[in-house]
Amino acid sequence: MVTLYHHPFCPHSRFVRLSLGEMGIEPKLAEERPWERRREFLMMAAEGATPVLVEDHPPALPGAEVIAEYLDETRGLGLGDRRLLPDDPAGRAEARRLMAWFNVKFFNEASCWIVREKVYKRFMSPEQGGGGPDMQAVRAARSNVRYHLRYIGHLIRGRNWLAGDRLTYADLAAAAHLSSLDYLGDVQWDEDETARIWYARVKSRPSFRPLLADRLPGMAPSATYANLDF
Amino acid sequence: MVTLYHHPFCPHSRFVRLSLGEMGIEPKLAEERPWERRREFLMMAAEGATPVLVEDHPPALPGAEVIAEYLDETRGLGLGDRRLLPDDPAGRAEARRLMAWFNVKFFNEASCWIVREKVYKRFMSPEQGGGGPDMQAVRAARSNVRYHLRYIGHLIRGRNWLAGDRLTYADLAAAAHLSSLDYLGDVQWDEDETARIWYARVKSRPSFRPLLADRLPGMAPSATYANLDF
Repeated sequence: MVTLYHHPFCPHSRFVRLSLGEMGIEPKLAEERPWERRREFLMMAAEGATPVLVEDHPPALPGAEVIAEYLDETRGLGLGDRRLLPDDPAGRAEARRLMAWFNVKFFNEASCWIVREKVYKRFMSPEQGGGGPDMQAVRAARSNVRYHLRYIGHLIRGRNWLAGDRLTYADLAAAAHLSSLDYLGDVQWDEDETARIWYARVKSRPSFRPLLADRLPGMAPSATYANLDF
Repeated sequence: MVTLYHHPFCPHSRFVRLSLGEMGIEPKLAEERPWERRREFLMMAAEGATPVLVEDHPPALPGAEVIAEYLDETRGLGLGDRRLLPDDPAGRAEARRLMAWFNVKFFNEASCWIVREKVYKRFMSPEQGGGGPDMQAVRAARSNVRYHLRYIGHLIRGRNWLAGDRLTYADLAAAAHLSSLDYLGDVQWDEDETARIWYARVKSRPSFRPLLADRLPGMAPSATYANLDF
């Protein structure tokens, strides 16, 4: 049994949900609000951040990359050509480079700000940093999304998937972060047609369905969020 | 031949230099000032950040984690018990967790701020963001260092090295970030005696010698920087 401590709008949690879905693993989902700094959660993972994956036995595995590498090491060989990292070191490096591009760089420049300002702060008390969104931060982050869409388009014009011939963690990381923003209507799909078509391909995978069913109380998704032909 | 594009005070570059040193690989070092956004550097690695490792052949490998995983995959098996990741998935996950703790969390909370404010900004033009250090940011970062020293002490009181029985990437990541700050006199070693003793052990390794010889023009290192018995 795999348990995933996650938040529905945490892009890194979404990345792990997609990865588990591609591997045919259905986790038990436990929603966590990291800003509440729940004692049992901090005892389990000193990082205090989602996602955290727990197998039947310790240790708890915190963070998108740690979980991705662990899943590849424990399940990868059995997945054959559905493995989410390529087989050769250079191909694996390229998939990891792009996984980090979205899980670190895109997060720092865009998804971290938009999700925090528009979602997390609604649930935080004033002491926890809650309140209305800082729209200046949201606007800056939105403008950064355009540049990343163009980068996706640039890559996909030369490749089948982001890191090469096969779907890899790179595609799931990029799609996970974009999906959180897409719910909020903060992805300007008209920026790059190739990026839009790539996202439609990822979005139509069965692993994506649970994400498309996520709903935030009091905040409906954008009109195209769950639409596979957007 | 391995070429490493690095900056002497970039903690992630230092981490890769230590890792290469432990593996007995002597790289050709090419100093890069990422804030100058040199065209050839950006063409090689769109991330625009150090470190970037280049073997005889493409692709260029950007970023501490991508390089660490690549080196383990291409050299790890030949290193025997000097391998820098453990052999079992849970052990590897713990080493990666702590590698990320220092390369991401410690960087975001401490080393990024101190190195940028006190070192990089000296070399940047006003247009690049140069100028005097923001001492409020430096003070906040310095205070965060104390908490991380206590975490190192906590781990080492139960283990031989940070992630377990053997020296791993986790120790090299932690020591790399601390070494940049130690040069600047910004590590309060009196905070945790166990952490200090652990650092002395890492610092006395032959892989550390090239780092201890680094000098910043116009800025002498702290009195204890190159002292193995500090």
